[in-house]
Amino acid sequence: MGNNEISRSKNLSIVGASGAVGVEFISVLEKLKFPVNNIKFLASSRSAGKTVSFQGEEHVIEELTKDSFKGTDIALFSAGSGISKQYEKDVLDAGAVIVDNSSAFRMRKDVPLIVPEVNPEDAKNHNGIIANPNCSTIIMLMAVYPLHAKYPVEKIIVSTYQAASGAGWEAMEELRISSEHKLQGKKFEPKIMPFDYAFNTFSHNSNIDESGYNEEERKMVFETKKILHNSDIGVSATCIRVPVFRAHSESIHLVFKDKSPSVEEARKLYTDFPGIDLVDDPQTNHFPMPIESSEKYNCLVGRIRKDISNPAQAMELFVSGDQLLKGAALNAVQIAQLL
Amino acid sequence: MGNNEISRSKNLSIVGASGAVGVEFISVLEKLKFPVNNIKFLASSRSAGKTVSFQGEEHVIEELTKDSFKGTDIALFSAGSGISKQYEKDVLDAGAVIVDNSSAFRMRKDVPLIVPEVNPEDAKNHNGIIANPNCSTIIMLMAVYPLHAKYPVEKIIVSTYQAASGAGWEAMEELRISSEHKLQGKKFEPKIMPFDYAFNTFSHNSNIDESGYNEEERKMVFETKKILHNSDIGVSATCIRVPVFRAHSESIHLVFKDKSPSVEEARKLYTDFPGIDLVDDPQTNHFPMPIESSEKYNCLVGRIRKDISNPAQAMELFVSGDQLLKGAALNAVQIAQLL
Repeated sequence: MGNNEISRSKNLSIVGASGAVGVEFISVLEKLKFPVNNIKFLASSRSAGKTVSFQGEEHVIEELTKDSFKGTDIALFSAGSGISKQYEKDVLDAGAVIVDNSSAFRMRKDVPLIVPEVNPEDAKNHNGIIANPNCSTIIMLMAVYPLHAKYPVEKIIVSTYQAASGAGWEAMEELRISSEHKLQGKKFEPKIMPFDYAFNTFSHNSNIDESGYNEEERKMVFETKKILHNSDIGVSATCIRVPVFRAHSESIHLVFKDKSPSVEEARKLYTDFPGIDLVDDPQTNHFPMPIESSEKYNCLVGRIRKDISNPAQAMELFVSGDQLLKGAALNAVQIAQLL
Repeated sequence: MGNNEISRSKNLSIVGASGAVGVEFISVLEKLKFPVNNIKFLASSRSAGKTVSFQGEEHVIEELTKDSFKGTDIALFSAGSGISKQYEKDVLDAGAVIVDNSSAFRMRKDVPLIVPEVNPEDAKNHNGIIANPNCSTIIMLMAVYPLHAKYPVEKIIVSTYQAASGAGWEAMEELRISSEHKLQGKKFEPKIMPFDYAFNTFSHNSNIDESGYNEEERKMVFETKKILHNSDIGVSATCIRVPVFRAHSESIHLVFKDKSPSVEEARKLYTDFPGIDLVDDPQTNHFPMPIESSEKYNCLVGRIRKDISNPAQAMELFVSGDQLLKGAALNAVQIAQLL
């Protein structure tokens, strides 16, 4: 290892190492060959003592305490917003930077909210914390931004087809077990989800405020305005869970300020954009699907067509992206790479 | 039976009696106590000879031929548009009225296209054929029309969450079997659907034309204009199959010509409308779900809220309805009741 590489190598702490996103942090860091000097895996006392493998070595997960962050350069958090807020001061006092996957800091004025393909320059202005956007927001913006950068969008109407993984391991497991029960004609009492998940869809189970929008939908509305530095962009979202394990899909209607790109130009803009695979074959009806975006780093975009009732100004799209990767761990590690 | 009842009683022929919709024709006719004088069950030679039970009596399914319709008053067709076209002349020559569940006649100028709660008066002007709209169109209009009747809608943007049943028994069976395989870690080669259905979503597998819209989406666009007698109403649809057995759900964005009703008024309009159950509880996140609309006659409507970025003029809704019942057999029998 040369001096340059040593100086660029970072001491990392992974908080929430045993969670669904935590496991993906590890695989993404390995796969992207993130320059790691020292790495520490942290979790609650429940998971402490378990081991995880990183770059061929076994590491024991340590219990997260206020003293965990000494010597840490970057702390990747994915343990819920309560934990992020609880340890914020300890991490900053230790001189480390927080890259946080929770919603704890996203809307704070002094915290950049970053999709590296969209607004990487915002990362420069951090004060010790950078927030990873909501998974549905990231995947939507991966589909909207390549067009928006050249053809400004004034309105986004989005309906989601969200996977179990957004609610963690236990929700994925409940989808599996409840489906087995249903197929065997046995009753299943949901424990993690509020409703039967097998062969069903239901509205995202987050708090609804007086606007009638649930928290997931409000994240898509307000995080989008922040990331795009555009308070005027209108967003309306309907967030629905579907019985899929780990990739979110979204049906997106875009209204452009001036005019819509042609379908050909939209396809070219996607082909030229990093992190996107164009999957758009009307001949075979082959379009983005969660089974094909699962475990992929790139988001799949397709079903690109002018709105049949407003072709001059509006367009339809469909995107599918891995909720645990681009929707969470990959985007967070990409943010860490910007540091 | 009084004389009036005898004169009102009809001789029915059920074409496609062994199909997924055909079976529901039988149960709906029984449940609605449709005044049946004589009933004949018709299907292809493959199903002929099987028996079906109707009002406690066993009936043998006869093979469909051009001579099948003698003495028939109303022929309920659900055997695909090819069969409908093939036997059209024979039914009309026999003096019977066709109520057709296929797309064969829907866009013909002289064929009324009916959702009985929306445009029942159109049924009067038939020339021997009345068409049952596409399932996704019916369920959408059940959610749109109660508002549209008082607050005219100028634009509908809809994304569907469609069940297997729209593609028949075999698709429902493939969803079951492919899910079993997936849960057991076994490979499954799709036969009916173009893609893996288990724990996946995919774009509706119908022909895409130069507009980029598939046939299902074009039905929603053009059937809506016909049923509402409104060629100006803008509709854009994205039709997606989800791993659900028999109920379609739809996320609907409405833009009103003048102004949006209040949420309270929208709720009241739904409560007062036949065929709708309002399922709209933000406290418990209880909204329309396919497991709750399955095997129900009424469509469930909820998630009613003003568009957060255009509250004066736009509204969001979510609807779920049984594809085989209100989306097909129930609506067709309701049309027959109009006769």
